[in-house]
This record gives sequence, structure tokens and C-alpha cells, in this order.
Amino acid sequence: MSSLFLRTLREDPADAEVPSHKLLVRAGYVRRIAPGVYSWLPLGLKVLRRIEQIVREEMDAIGAQEIQFPALLPREPYEATNRWTEYGPNIFRLKDRKGADYLLGPTHEELFTLTVKGEFSSYKDYPVILYQIQTKYRDEERPRAGILRGREFLMKDSYSFDLTDEGLSESYAKHRAAYIKTFDRLGLRYVVVAATSGAMGGSASEEFLAESETGEDTFVRGPGGYAANVEAVTTPAPPAQSVEDKPAAVVHHTPDTPTIESLVDFLNANTDRKFTAADTLKNVLLKTRQPGSDEWELLAIGVPGDREVDMKRVEAGLEPAEVALLEDKDFAANPFLVKGYIGPKALQDNGVRYVVDPRIVTGTAWVTGADRADHHVVDLVCGRDFTPDGTIEAAEVRAGDPSPDGTGVLEAARGIEIGHIFQLGRKYADAFKLDALGPDSKPVRITMGSYGIGVSRLVAAIAEQSHDDSGLVWPRAVAPFDVHVVVAHKSNPELLAAGESLAAELEALGLSVVLDDRKTSPGVKFADAELIGVPTIVVVGRGLAEGTLEVKDRVTGERTEIAVEGAAETVAALVQG
Amino acid sequence: MSSLFLRTLREDPADAEVPSHKLLVRAGYVRRIAPGVYSWLPLGLKVLRRIEQIVREEMDAIGAQEIQFPALLPREPYEATNRWTEYGPNIFRLKDRKGADYLLGPTHEELFTLTVKGEFSSYKDYPVILYQIQTKYRDEERPRAGILRGREFLMKDSYSFDLTDEGLSESYAKHRAAYIKTFDRLGLRYVVVAATSGAMGGSASEEFLAESETGEDTFVRGPGGYAANVEAVTTPAPPAQSVEDKPAAVVHHTPDTPTIESLVDFLNANTDRKFTAADTLKNVLLKTRQPGSDEWELLAIGVPGDREVDMKRVEAGLEPAEVALLEDKDFAANPFLVKGYIGPKALQDNGVRYVVDPRIVTGTAWVTGADRADHHVVDLVCGRDFTPDGTIEAAEVRAGDPSPDGTGVLEAARGIEIGHIFQLGRKYADAFKLDALGPDSKPVRITMGSYGIGVSRLVAAIAEQSHDDSGLVWPRAVAPFDVHVVVAHKSNPELLAAGESLAAELEALGLSVVLDDRKTSPGVKFADAELIGVPTIVVVGRGLAEGTLEVKDRVTGERTEIAVEGAAETVAALVQG
Repeated sequence: MSSLFLRTLREDPADAEVPSHKLLVRAGYVRRIAPGVYSWLPLGLKVLRRIEQIVREEMDAIGAQEIQFPALLPREPYEATNRWTEYGPNIFRLKDRKGADYLLGPTHEELFTLTVKGEFSSYKDYPVILYQIQTKYRDEERPRAGILRGREFLMKDSYSFDLTDEGLSESYAKHRAAYIKTFDRLGLRYVVVAATSGAMGGSASEEFLAESETGEDTFVRGPGGYAANVEAVTTPAPPAQSVEDKPAAVVHHTPDTPTIESLVDFLNANTDRKFTAADTLKNVLLKTRQPGSDEWELLAIGVPGDREVDMKRVEAGLEPAEVALLEDKDFAANPFLVKGYIGPKALQDNGVRYVVDPRIVTGTAWVTGADRADHHVVDLVCGRDFTPDGTIEAAEVRAGDPSPDGTGVLEAARGIEIGHIFQLGRKYADAFKLDALGPDSKPVRITMGSYGIGVSRLVAAIAEQSHDDSGLVWPRAVAPFDVHVVVAHKSNPELLAAGESLAAELEALGLSVVLDDRKTSPGVKFADAELIGVPTIVVVGRGLAEGTLEVKDRVTGERTEIAVEGAAETVAALVQG
Repeated sequence: MSSLFLRTLREDPADAEVPSHKLLVRAGYVRRIAPGVYSWLPLGLKVLRRIEQIVREEMDAIGAQEIQFPALLPREPYEATNRWTEYGPNIFRLKDRKGADYLLGPTHEELFTLTVKGEFSSYKDYPVILYQIQTKYRDEERPRAGILRGREFLMKDSYSFDLTDEGLSESYAKHRAAYIKTFDRLGLRYVVVAATSGAMGGSASEEFLAESETGEDTFVRGPGGYAANVEAVTTPAPPAQSVEDKPAAVVHHTPDTPTIESLVDFLNANTDRKFTAADTLKNVLLKTRQPGSDEWELLAIGVPGDREVDMKRVEAGLEPAEVALLEDKDFAANPFLVKGYIGPKALQDNGVRYVVDPRIVTGTAWVTGADRADHHVVDLVCGRDFTPDGTIEAAEVRAGDPSPDGTGVLEAARGIEIGHIFQLGRKYADAFKLDALGPDSKPVRITMGSYGIGVSRLVAAIAEQSHDDSGLVWPRAVAPFDVHVVVAHKSNPELLAAGESLAAELEALGLSVVLDDRKTSPGVKFADAELIGVPTIVVVGRGLAEGTLEVKDRVTGERTEIAVEGAAETVAALVQG
């Protein structure tokens, strides 16, 4: 380490909030160059390369073939699929010296599809799975958490090309199995959750989430094995009821009740019925805009009053459209919107699309706005007094909600998205007319699957799961070195010689070793060893005089004395066992 | 190969001029995505990765430490060194969603310097060598020859950081030795030539050029070992002569002699002396502009009339300034420039900087323009009648010119630049104040070396040197596979089974194998095998019935029959032997 390009830091970086970010910077793995743009120092690059190699091996094992596309891409293919526009400000765009438009690839569906079309033509060529491990770019609005959500990052992306839907299912299953092997080898705790497919289009879709409190993704799981990203949770609709036995809707003067809480309190104080927030129908106004359009359109969402609208779920449901909250000027421009007292009637009378939570079924009665200040209507019955324009998964999902598989209630947790697999179907094959000539000489439209792993993000995801108060604790499969040898006192030439010869012997046995031969105090060396997180630490210290070394297991914290005689073999057995 | 993502092409791509470009496209190694931007198909990526690994091993062997910088870089560091401006239109620039300026890194001097400054502070930390193998971007005006001069390409760049000039020399020598090992392992024919250091600044500088008729770089070499890029050739100046014994300068009426040839003919016909083009002094007018400036400045260059001005040499000499030829409007704006009859007097009287070829020394007498149409002056003596403002290496270098080392005459050849090493000195350390605290607690300014290898370009450079009329012929060290097994007739199940088992046995012996098990004609298979260029081809054909296989050496063309019994071991011995 006296010559290793590494300086550890005593202080957390000022901009770091999550443990992986703090530790990867403090331990000298990465350095920030610009927002969401990092360089990899020697230790970080070693971990990144080990992860990359495990991902590669498991992709090769399912017969996927590695290729590599450029990151600098011409506009035209992305124009053909409208993604040049749909991506909005989320991609980096640039012009070359001749004024031609380019982008830095955020994902390569277009290129994969065009490339397969360029090379393959017969049904005999299929199926094929191609992948790349390549640098990608997204101009994130809020890059965060170091390399966890960067603007330049390394991804493995693969695509399967099949003649039939059954073939696609098989390719999907192969990837699912390969991902499980990959993440198991990386020593991760993760869940596979049902997911929405986002801007990519397509049907079956699952995400691999590394469990982590600092994760951006919330997921839920039920006791029977159901697990889903909150965006993908479907709300079981209660059965429809008869509308005939319901009391008539009555408008009440409800002064000063612009919130659900004030409304429920007022009704409970001034009527002889007992209301809860769940009896109210809250109408939330949003506006949406299709990609490439300048026109905003109003959209009203009705949810039971005891739940908030979850904007991530709304966005997932409306993609690729853009969604925004209404501003004061929007209310001013639409005087029929009486803030705090909006009801279905004024919305639908004025041509505003009105979609509701799946719980709002025919026959259910609601307290909701009466479209006049200080007035609400009670017993407004769905299917009798109003008919929504459709349903939407907009209401927040809560721990304790019933699991859609009927096995009990959901619990909520957070995770980091580390992989995503989904059946893309024929969206891109249609866009580029990717056909194979069938055995009967008729064209067969190809169906595709899309599969991603966030390779550089995995470094952070593993660090989130593998650290303690003293520093990083790498799983053996990805550690930057197998063994960290600490020469406790460099000024003692015998210790230094013993450390150097142990390091050499370990390397001869095929292990990678970092040797701390610096002229620093033992305390600094031990602290750095803990911070860096190599799983096996060997201390060459005072015990040498009695013929012993100390081995510390960074995972368990266990310390063992071993004999100097045969120490390399003993350590190798510990590491490889 | 029935499942390999590969389709060979019978026709050369329309835009390809050089053999490597034609063959790498035809054999399915690379595909064009945009001008100078290529994707790597499976075979191409395998070759690229093998080259990359050899480069990495030789860098590791000299103790260089691998790191990785982003390609997306903020403007500020490049602003600090003025390269944001100096690069002009040669880099890709972009803005992020917040309007901040970025570039795609063409080279990373700034980042390396800043990173070392960020981590290291004491003299004990030095020397250090860092490198990366990373994707770079240059917005070339004329991308050409496929991956030979692309706009997105893979480079190894390393930097040495030393406390002393002697240390820098050692780091330079280490790199020079590592480059020789690297290019030797790659099986290249190459020369090491003296070079200029271009926009990077600095002193000692050598280029590694792969010998190739299609190369963009011209170099010269002398019998005594002298070799230089033409830009770096220094012209030996003849000794100065006395001006006193020279005849007086006389203006002659030389009607209709705007060219050197017409002038010499006129003088030989109308005087009693014998003149050659080498006796004339040709004055070439250019304009130059400093980076970031809008102001063009006139520059006149005087060269012996038997030589052309070599613009690449001029540009190298004037970097980082931009150089352009005069346009008609420039002549119109400067009426003292009498086209075809320009002499030193009018230039210097009008404040135009006048620099000359080193051959134009004190005491030499010249025929040159008299600044009047149809008039020339004879016996204009340097140091008596005019005094140049300096010298410049502008005249073309020719085969047959004397070698600067005095060992004979130069011969000229062409090459592809595959590596460049040079002593950068303190330019970047000065820009960023990169100091180490010395043992006496005084700051020591660090001195740097810069060393590049064009990794993706090497794929093309090797292909340029290693091909024949039938296709590519890869050196073993970089071939995409070790062995190409051709099953001549797939419809014969015995042949197919024998081919499959041979491939499996070879793989078990640690060799990489491509098996041609396609249902294509034997002719197509043999042609594809030659085109793809795996160095050892094994044909499983009719001979199988008699217990033999055919091995073809793609380099020598030699064909050998080997016994089926023990065939895998026989082939492995050939490959490894």
C-alpha cells in the first residue's frame, strides 16, 4: 500500500447521505467528477470488474453472445420509435461538427433490433440472445447516492429474439434463472417483484431488488409469495353492489371543510351517522401531456379519502405521458374547479377525464365535493349518480393492505433495482419490421425480451448490504483483494520481511493480496483495513516473535492465531474454504 | 456457427477503401452505425478484448495502476488549460439539462493531474504511473477507414508522475520497453520514430507506427537507425557563408514567370548562368489564428523552390494555432502581395512575419520575387539583403534527403500510429499546481509523461498487416478463436458427430473453438473460414472414413493430414507449439 494509488479519508463527503456513497468515497473506491459522474480508482475498478465478469459468465452460460454498441448514437433510429421525443430532458443530446443530431445512448433497443435485422433473415437463425456490458448515459434530474443513481453508468443489457411467444417465454425464463445465479454469486439479499415495464412497453415484467432501507424503490410482499414493486401492485376490486337500495344523494352545507379531516369531523358532529375518511371520495386534479406535445390536458383522479395519491404509481400508469400537479393559474383558468369541494359532476360536465381507484365500484356510496364552496354531497352512488371514465392504480399502497393473491396482508420494504427482465413483445420489431422468413416462405414477426443489470450500481448495492460501523465488508466473490496483510510495525525489519514473504507466498497460491507496508501507526493501518473491507485480514505483529500471526475475519469479526509455519496455506484454506 | 451471431458478406462495403475496413466488415467483425462510429459484433469484440488484455498485462508489469475516468467530462478542467478552446471543432460538446457545459473526453490529462493532486501530497507518494483503457471521442473532420480513424474509439492512456526529470526519463523508458513488448506480442511490424508532441506540449516524444502502405503517417528512416515522423524531421542547416564575396542583388524583368518552372526556364534562356529550382526562394503566404481568437495574422514561409510546403509539418510547427491558406480576398486586402512575385522586402516592409526553411542561412544567394509583376531579383543574399524572422520546418521531406544523423540518406514509408509516448513535463502540473511536499517541506513541482495506445485501432492495424486475398489471417495471440473446425457436409451425421466431439475435446484442452456446423455448401464454409482468419482450420470431411482429418495453417497455407485418433491433442500441439 506504500505504492497503491489510494488515500482513505477520515471524513464522510459532504454530499453523501447513504452508507455506500460515504464508504466508497472514504475508502478510496470512487471519486466524483461532476454530478452523477464518477471516476473509478484502483480498488473500485477491481470490484467493478469482478462483478462484470460474474455477470458475463452467467450470460455466456445461457448462450447469450456478447457484442458492443457505441454510446454515441445517431438520432434517426430513436426518431423512428419516437423515443428521441419521449425521453424529453432525460437524455444527453449533442450535435457533431456538421450539425447532425446525436444522443448518448440511455438504452439500445433500437440498435439491437436494427443489428439483428441487418444480419439475420431466416427462421433458422432464431432464437438468438445478444448482450453488451456498456457505458450508458441518462441526464437524471436528481443524480443521487454516488454511483447508485449516476448519469454515466455501466449496464449489462441483453435482448432475446424469438419466433414465437413460447420462445420468448423460454428466453425470459433463461434470463430469470441466470439473474438468480448472478445475484446469488454476488452474495446479495434480493427479491424478485412484479413490475411495470415503463417506457419500454411490453407485458410480463419483473424487477430484482436488492433489499436496502436506502433503496429508492418501495415494494410489498404477501405471506403467500406475492411480491411487487408498488407501481405494479393491482388493487383487488370489491364486488359491485346493487344501486337500488341506496339512499338518495343529499347536498350538505359543510362550512370550512376543505380537507378530508375537517369534513369527517364536521359530518360526525352534525349528522347522526358515523363517517370515516374511507367513506369520502377525494378528487385530485392533475394535468398530462403526451410526448412531443405542447398541450396539457386535465385529468381528475378519484381515490378513497383515507389514501394519498402516489405520484410514482400515477406516472407508471400514464407513461409515456408527462404528469404534473395543477398550478394556481390552472385553477384560475377553470373556475368550475372549486378547490376543496370538487365533485365528479362538474368534472364530467366540463369534459375532464375522470378515472378512479379500483375500489370505487358500482353501488358504492361516497361523500364528495358538491362543486360549491363549503358544500359536500353525501351518498353519491357510483353507477347511479356518476360513472367514472375508467380506473387507475393511483392510490398509495400500504402495509396491511390485502395481498392480491388472497393469502393475507402486504408488508412493505425498500430496495435498490439491480435487474429488470421483461417481455418486450413486438414493439421494436414492429417499428423496424424485423421479420424472419418462415419455413413456408412467409414472414414471421420477431418477438423480443429485454433484460438489464445495473453493473456499476451493483457495486453500491452490495456495499449498502455489506458494511458495518467500521467500513465495507465485501463478499469474497467481489472483494478487491482476497487477503489484506498488515505489517503492524514497518520499522521492525523482521515484521516487514515476514509480511512481504507471506504476501508473495499467498500470491503464489493464486490469491490476490494487498500488503500494508506503510510507515504509519498500527492504529491507522487497522482502521484502514476495516474501512477497505477485504474479507480476510492477516496481521503480522508482535506475535511473530512467538511464531504466530493473527487472522481476522472481517465478516464475523473473529480473530484467530495461526502459526507462521505454513501460514500461507492456512490462510488460503480459510479463504477458499 | 449455426447459432453464432455472424453473417459474412460477399461484397466489399461501398465506403471502404483500405483492406482492414473491407475485411472486418465482410467477415462480420464490425458494423457501421454512423460516420466513424462502429459496433463490435462477437468476433470483433473477442479480438478487441484479447488486444486490450495484452496491453493491460504489459502495463501492470511495469507497476502501472488501472483506474477509469468518465467519458462525460465537465468543461472547467479543460477551461483551466485552455483546451476547451484549443480543441476547436475537434471535440464533442454538449449541455446537460441545467445548461452546464460538458465534453466527451478526447484525452484525459486534466483529470489525471487533478486526481493525483486530490490523492497524493508527499514526495513519498511518488513516482506513480496510472492508466485507463477507456472509450474516447473526437469529432474528426474526416473519419476514415472504418475503425482506423473513428470518432468513438478505445484507448489505453497512461500518465507518469515523477519528482525529477531523471524520474521522468525512467518512467518514459519503462513505457517504451512495455510498448515494445506489447507490440511484439501482438505480432506487429512496427517502427519507433521521433515525433512532435502536438497539442500536448512537452519534449521527448516518440511514435510507434505499424508499417502499412495505407497508413496516414509518413515517416523516414536512415541507414544508421534514425527514424522520424515527417513532422519531426529536422533539417540539417548548412554552414553560414560570408556575405562579402557575393554579387549584388539585381532585379530582372522576367515576364510571364509566376511559377518556379517558368522562372527557371526564363533565366536559363535569358542569362548566361545556369539556374535550378533549388536556387530559387519560394515565398508561401499563410494565415494563422491563435485558439479562441477571431484574428487571422499573415505568415510568410520561404522555402527552396524545388520543394513544396508540407502543411502537416507547418501545422505541427505552429500548434496549437490554426493555419489556413490565403484566399483571393486576403490578397485583395493586401495589395503589396503580388501573386507569383512575392519577395522578402514587401513582406517585411509591411510587417508580415517571415520565417524560412533552415537551409536558408546567412550568405546563401537566391532568386526570388521582386514584389512587382513580371519581376524577380537574382542574388538576393540572406543576412545581407534580407534577414528572416526565424526558421520553420515547413519544406517537404523527401526520400534521398540526408539523414540528420549523418549516416546516409533517408527512405520514406507509411505507417499507422499505434502508440505515442512523450515527456509532457510540467505543463499540466503547472496548470493545476500539482506539487509534492519534499523532504525539506518545500513543494516540488511534479513532472509528467503521457503514453497512449490506440486499442481499437490496433484491431485494424493488425488486420492491415495480416490478410491475403482470401481474407484475414490473425496472429494467434489475438485471433477470435484458436481453432476453426469445419464440418464439410453437415447432412452426413458421422461428420457432424466427429466435428462436435473434436470441438468439445479441443475446448476441454483449453482452446477456444468455432465449429462450422451449418447446412451450407463446403465451398461457402471454406471461403468463410479463410475470410474470418482463425489461424488453424480443421476440416472434418470425406477423409474421416479413412480415419483422417485435414489441418490447414491459415498463415502458411500448408495442409496436413492428421489421424482422427488423438486429433485434439495433435491440433493443440500445433496451436500451442
